[in-house]
Amino acid sequence: MKTISLLGATGSIGLQTLDIIRKHPERFRLSSFSAGKNIDVVRQIINEFKPDLVSVLEKDEANRLKIEYPHISVLHGEEGLEAAAVDEKADTLVNAVLGSVGLQPTLKAIESGKTIAIANKETLVTAGHIVTEAAKKAGVKLLPVDSEHSAIFQCMQGEHEKNVSRLILTASGGSFRDKKREELVNVTVEETLNHPNWSMGAKITVDSATMMNKGLEVIEAHWLFNLPYDQIDVILHRESIIHSMVEFHDRSVMAQLGSPDMRVPIQYALTWPDRFPLPDTAPLDLASISKLHFEKADYNRYRMLHLAYEAGKIGGTMPAMMNAANEEAVAAFLDSKLTFLQIEEVVERAMEQHSPIESPELGAIIETDAEGRAFVRSFLS
Amino acid sequence: MKTISLLGATGSIGLQTLDIIRKHPERFRLSSFSAGKNIDVVRQIINEFKPDLVSVLEKDEANRLKIEYPHISVLHGEEGLEAAAVDEKADTLVNAVLGSVGLQPTLKAIESGKTIAIANKETLVTAGHIVTEAAKKAGVKLLPVDSEHSAIFQCMQGEHEKNVSRLILTASGGSFRDKKREELVNVTVEETLNHPNWSMGAKITVDSATMMNKGLEVIEAHWLFNLPYDQIDVILHRESIIHSMVEFHDRSVMAQLGSPDMRVPIQYALTWPDRFPLPDTAPLDLASISKLHFEKADYNRYRMLHLAYEAGKIGGTMPAMMNAANEEAVAAFLDSKLTFLQIEEVVERAMEQHSPIESPELGAIIETDAEGRAFVRSFLS
Repeated sequence: MKTISLLGATGSIGLQTLDIIRKHPERFRLSSFSAGKNIDVVRQIINEFKPDLVSVLEKDEANRLKIEYPHISVLHGEEGLEAAAVDEKADTLVNAVLGSVGLQPTLKAIESGKTIAIANKETLVTAGHIVTEAAKKAGVKLLPVDSEHSAIFQCMQGEHEKNVSRLILTASGGSFRDKKREELVNVTVEETLNHPNWSMGAKITVDSATMMNKGLEVIEAHWLFNLPYDQIDVILHRESIIHSMVEFHDRSVMAQLGSPDMRVPIQYALTWPDRFPLPDTAPLDLASISKLHFEKADYNRYRMLHLAYEAGKIGGTMPAMMNAANEEAVAAFLDSKLTFLQIEEVVERAMEQHSPIESPELGAIIETDAEGRAFVRSFLS
Repeated sequence: MKTISLLGATGSIGLQTLDIIRKHPERFRLSSFSAGKNIDVVRQIINEFKPDLVSVLEKDEANRLKIEYPHISVLHGEEGLEAAAVDEKADTLVNAVLGSVGLQPTLKAIESGKTIAIANKETLVTAGHIVTEAAKKAGVKLLPVDSEHSAIFQCMQGEHEKNVSRLILTASGGSFRDKKREELVNVTVEETLNHPNWSMGAKITVDSATMMNKGLEVIEAHWLFNLPYDQIDVILHRESIIHSMVEFHDRSVMAQLGSPDMRVPIQYALTWPDRFPLPDTAPLDLASISKLHFEKADYNRYRMLHLAYEAGKIGGTMPAMMNAANEEAVAAFLDSKLTFLQIEEVVERAMEQHSPIESPELGAIIETDAEGRAFVRSFLS
C-alpha cells in the first residue's frame, strides 16, 4: 500500500492522479492533498477519498471546511501546502501544483524522506541543482510524471547512465505548428488554447504553443537525467505517439510510445518499477495511425526553445528569471494584456536585463522569481 | 574478456560478428569457429583472429588446412561443428549457421554451460521446447541476435514478464511488399533477392519476401519470451526503423529503433547488459527519415505468415515440418525448380500431409525434418 500526498489535486494532473488512486484502492491511499480555490471539487475529493489533511488557498474557505469536516485537518496558504507536503502518513508526494510555488514544499518533502513524483516543472527548472543535490543527500528518488520524462525514464530501465549518448524529446509543435512565424502576430487566446493532441491546463497549453513548455522540459531533463544540454535534442513529432527517446552509444535508440493519456505516466510514477493494468486506456494501434511524422525543431520559428537552451546553459538564476517572466507574460496574454509574440519578447528582455548568480541558494532564486515578475509587470504598465 | 566460439563464421551474421570482435580486442577473443566451403575466408579469419580450433564442412579441406596451420585443431563435418560449439575455452557461443544444422551443436553448448547468442532461427523453431527447457535446466541464458528479438529483449530490460500484454514484431514486407498477390506469379529469383532494407543471405531474403522469415520469428519469439501466439502480433513497417515493440498491461509501449545495421543487435548480445560504443554505425536521424509507416499484416497476402502461426499453435513436430519443407522449397526456388508462389504451396502441402507428434524428442524432430525434405523432393520430381 502506497500512501500519497497530492499537491494540486484539482488541476488536470491532480484529477488524473486521483483517477489512478481510485482505480487501485488496494494499492493506493490518499492521505492528504492541497488545492486552490476550487472548493466544490475539494469537497468531492474529501467525500470520496477521506484524507486526513487538506490545504486550500484561502483562510476563509479553510475555516468553512473545518466546520463541515471536523474530523480532518484543514489548513491553508503556503504553510498548509508545506504541511501537506511533509504529511508523515504519506510515503510519496505527487507534486502537481502549477508554477514556482511547488519548489519549497518539494524540498521539505525531500528532507522528510518521501519519494517524489514530480509533475511540477518549475521545481527542477528554477532549482534543479538544489533539488537534485537534496534528493541525493536524502537518498530520495525523483520520479518524473511528465509524459516526455516518464518516457525517458522508462527507456532508462535496466540501462547504465554512462551508455547514454542523447536524449531526444518529442514535441507536438503545439496549437500553431502549421503556422509560419509571421502568421502568429494576431493569434487569439482561444486559438492558442486549442491544442491538437493533449487536453491540459491553459498555462501549459500556451507554453506548448510557444514551445516554452518543451524548453522547460529540456532543462528538467538536464537535471533529472544528469546530461549536458548538447546531449539533449528536441524533435517535432506531430502525433505525440512517441513520447520521447534515448539514444545509447551503440546507436540503439529506445522509445516509449502510447496513446496520449497522462494517466499512463502518472501511474508509472506510482507503480515503478512495476506496472499495473490500465485497461480503460486505449491500446496503441499503429496500423490505424498509419504514419508518424518527424521534423527538425526550428529554433528561429520556436524562439522560446532557443531561449530555454540559453537559460539552461547559462544556469544559475537565469532559468528562474526566464520561468518567472514567462509565467507573468503568459498570464498577461491570457488576460489579453500581451499578444502571443509579445510573450517571448518579454521573456527575452527579462533575460537580457538579468545578471545571473551562480549556484544560487533558495533565497536568491525566490528573489529572482520576484524580480522577473516585477520586470514583466513594469513592462505592462 | 569474453571468449567466443562462432558457428557459421563466413555467413552474413558471422562476418559481422567478427567485425564486432575486431573492434573490441580488449573485450572479445575468438577461440573457435566453424565454416562451410568458403576456405579462402577461413584462411583470412585464422590469420587475423588466431583461434585455437576451426571446423570446416569437408574432410579434404580440413586436411589441407591442418598442414597449413599445424598449431591449431582443424576438424570437419558435424563432429567438428559440435566440437567448436563445446570448445572449453569459450564462454559464449554465437550460433550463426543457417538452417536446422544449428540445433544439435546448440544443445551441446547449452549442456556445457555456455551463454548462447542465437542467430539461428531453426534451433528455436523446430525444438523450442527442448532448447528452452535445457537452457533453464543448465541455468544458461539465450540471447537473441536477430534484430527483432534483440529489440524485444532490449524493451524487456528492467521489466517484468508478467506485465507484458503483447509483442509487436515489425516486418518490412520484403522485396514484393508493393506487389499484389496476383503480381507474384512470375517474379524472378533476381527480383526476390533485391531486398529494400537489409543486405542478407539468399535464403533469408527469400523468406523475407514470402514472410516465412517473420513467421519463423513469431515462433522464435513465442519460445524466447514465453508468450502465447495470441499475444504476438506482426505489423508492416516498411522503413525497418522500429525493430520491434513490447506493449505492457498499462498500455505503455516500448520500442527499439535504429538504422538497419545488424552489428547493433549482434554486439548487444555480446555486451548485454552493458553496451559498448559502435561509432561507425550511422546514428538514427528521424527528422531526415521524416515518416514512419505502419500497416496491418494481411494474412491472405502473406500466406506463409498464416501458416507459421498455424504451425506454432499446433506445435509438436509441425514447425519442424514447416521449416524443413520451406528450406527445401526455397532451395528449389533459388535453383529455378519452383516458382515463387509454389514455395508456399509446397510448404502448405507438406504441413497438410503431416501428423504432428506432441512434445517430440530430438530424434522425432530430426526425422520430421528428413520427412519434410523428402516430401518436397518427391513433389519436385
